Amino acid sequence: MESAIPPHLRSDRARPRRIPDDYAPPYPSFVARHKPSVKRVVMAYFGVQYPGEAPATAATALQRIAAAFTAANAPGHWDRASYVDEAGFTNIISIAYWDAPASFDAWFAIHGRDWTADSRVGEGLGYFIEVLRPAVERYETLFSATDRPEGIAVLADSMSDVVQEHAYWGGARDRIPLSQTDEMAPAGMARIVTEGARRRVLPLGNLCLIRSGQDWGDTEADELHMYQHEVEPVLREGMEFLRDDGLAIGCFANRYMRVIDADGAPVDKSFGMSWWKSLAALERWSESHPTHLAIFSAAMKYLQALGPAARLKLYHEVTVAAADEQFFEYLNCHDRTGMLRAE
Amino acid sequence: MESAIPPHLRSDRARPRRIPDDYAPPYPSFVARHKPSVKRVVMAYFGVQYPGEAPATAATALQRIAAAFTAANAPGHWDRASYVDEAGFTNIISIAYWDAPASFDAWFAIHGRDWTADSRVGEGLGYFIEVLRPAVERYETLFSATDRPEGIAVLADSMSDVVQEHAYWGGARDRIPLSQTDEMAPAGMARIVTEGARRRVLPLGNLCLIRSGQDWGDTEADELHMYQHEVEPVLREGMEFLRDDGLAIGCFANRYMRVIDADGAPVDKSFGMSWWKSLAALERWSESHPTHLAIFSAAMKYLQALGPAARLKLYHEVTVAAADEQFFEYLNCHDRTGMLRAE
Repeated sequence: MESAIPPHLRSDRARPRRIPDDYAPPYPSFVARHKPSVKRVVMAYFGVQYPGEAPATAATALQRIAAAFTAANAPGHWDRASYVDEAGFTNIISIAYWDAPASFDAWFAIHGRDWTADSRVGEGLGYFIEVLRPAVERYETLFSATDRPEGIAVLADSMSDVVQEHAYWGGARDRIPLSQTDEMAPAGMARIVTEGARRRVLPLGNLCLIRSGQDWGDTEADELHMYQHEVEPVLREGMEFLRDDGLAIGCFANRYMRVIDADGAPVDKSFGMSWWKSLAALERWSESHPTHLAIFSAAMKYLQALGPAARLKLYHEVTVAAADEQFFEYLNCHDRTGMLRAE
Repeated sequence: MESAIPPHLRSDRARPRRIPDDYAPPYPSFVARHKPSVKRVVMAYFGVQYPGEAPATAATALQRIAAAFTAANAPGHWDRASYVDEAGFTNIISIAYWDAPASFDAWFAIHGRDWTADSRVGEGLGYFIEVLRPAVERYETLFSATDRPEGIAVLADSMSDVVQEHAYWGGARDRIPLSQTDEMAPAGMARIVTEGARRRVLPLGNLCLIRSGQDWGDTEADELHMYQHEVEPVLREGMEFLRDDGLAIGCFANRYMRVIDADGAPVDKSFGMSWWKSLAALERWSESHPTHLAIFSAAMKYLQALGPAARLKLYHEVTVAAADEQFFEYLNCHDRTGMLRAE
C-alpha cells in the first residue's frame, strides 16, 4: 500500500489527511502515475450541440476534429461521448488529453482555436470549448482496476500499487497534492464576456471538474444485471438531480454521457462530468445527497462482496483548476450549456 | 449561526475543519452549552446483567442505585435503559451524569464503589461500572431540537443557536474542541486485570464512546409510521452489525438500548451506545457502512423534508477520553460484556 501522492509531490502537511496513518481501506483502488517530468496536463472538451435530428454539419465537425487529433502535436488520448441535455439538445463532446502543454498550445493554435470561430455561426450547430490545463498538484485519479485506464490516466506512465487514501469521504481531496497545504477555496464571481458571436466564461479560482465513469463491457449475466438494475438507476437519478437542481448547491453543469465510437455507436461505458464552484461543494453533495449515498453504498457493498472478481470498472478524475488554467468558449449554444450557467 | 465550539474553548487551529467558512448546513442542529466554569463532567454507567428471568436481586439492585442517586452529591441527571445482549442476557444500565467531578468522587466513594464489590458475587447477577470523566475539550453533543436535552446536555446551561459544524462527515470531530489541535489517535493495548472476583479493564488512550438516541414520543400517525417502518429497521440493522461484527472494525461493544422508567416500563426513546478504539474507527463505520449510510440518508431526507415540523427528536454525545479519564470494572459478567471484549 502506498500514498496516492507520489514522493516527488509530497510536502510538509499544513493540512492533515482525514485518516489516521494506520487506516486500511476495505477494498483496493489505484491511481495513475505520471513520470515526474510531467508537470502539467491538458484536458480539452470540444463540443457540438444541436436540437432534434443531427444536421449534416455535425458529422463534418466530428470528422474534422477527429482528423485534427491525428495531426502534429496530437493529443496522447481522446474519446467521444454523447448525451441529450435538459433543453433537449444533443451534445457530442470529443475529449482530448495532453501531458505537454506546449504541444497542446501548438496543436490548438492550428486545429483547435477555430472550433468556435465566428464563421461557424451559419452551420446550424452550437460549438463549445472547455479546457483545463492543471498542474499535476491540482488533480487526482482513482481506478477500481489497473488494466483499463481512462481519461488522463491513459497518458500516465503506470498505475500505482493499492493506495491508502480512498473509500472514505474526503479521499479525493486527500489525493490531490495541493490539499497538503491549501484549502482550495473558490474565488471570484462568474462572468460572461461576449466577443462577436462567441461567449467566453471568465475563469473562477479553484473551479472543480469531475469526470467519473463506469465500464460494464466485461461484466456478465448476474453482474451486468446488478449494474443495470441496482446501480445504474440510482446513478442516473443522482445525475439528473445535479443536471436539474445542481445550481443551488454549487454544481454549474452536469452531463451524464454515454461513450460512443467513431461511427457514433454507443459502447459499454458512461461517465458523469460536472463543473463545480468548488471541491467543497462537490464533497458536500457526494457525501450527503441521498442519490449519491445510495450509489456509494451500493458500490461499497458491491466491491467488498465481489472483490477482485468484480468486472465492472470504475474510475474518476477530479481537478481543482487555478484561474489561469481555464478556458471556456461557447458559440451559438443555448444559455444552459456548460459553464454558461455559472453566471 | 455559530460554531459548535464555544469562544472560551477555541484555540489556534493546527488542524482545519472539513468545511469552508461559508458552509451552511442544510437543516438546523444545536449543541449543549455548559457554563465556562464547568471544566470536566462525569458519565457513569452502572449495569446489572442476568440470563433469562430477572432474579429478585435485580430489582433490589436497581432500587439501591436509584436511592443512591438521591443521596448527597447526587448526579444532576440520570436515566435507565435495558437491552438483551448477544449472549441472551438482559442488561439494565442506570446512567448518571455529573458536571463536578469532586461531587462524583464523593458520591462514588460512598454509593458507587461497592456496585462491583466482591460480596455481590452470590447474588446471581453480573454487575459492571463504566465511567468516563472527560474534560470539556473532549466531547461534543448534537441535538435536532432545543427543547429536549438528553444525557450530559440535561446538565448544560443552555442550548446553542444553530451550529455550523454538522450534517457532514467529520462534523463530530470538528465539534470536539480538542480536534483543533490533536488527531486524538488511539494509544495502548487493552488489558484486563483480575482483582478477586472483579475484572478491571485498563484504560486506552483516546477511547471513544458514543450515545446516540431518538425520542419518538411526540410523533404522530404518519411520522411515527415513517420512523417505525423506514428508520428504525435500518437503525436496528446497523446496531446489530456493530454488536455482532463490530470488533473487526474497532467497535469493542455496542448496545442498542430502550429507555425504561422507574417501574421498568419502556418509554418512547431508544439509543445506541458503543465503545470504540478511536473516533476514527467510529467515523469510518458511520460514513461507509451501508446500514449507517441508509440511516444517515433517511435522516437527511426526513429532516430536510419536514424541517421544523419534525417531531422526532435526535441527539448524540461523543466523547474521546484520555487514559486517566476512564474506569471499567466487571463482576460476574460474561466475557462478551462491554469493554471486556476489548482485550
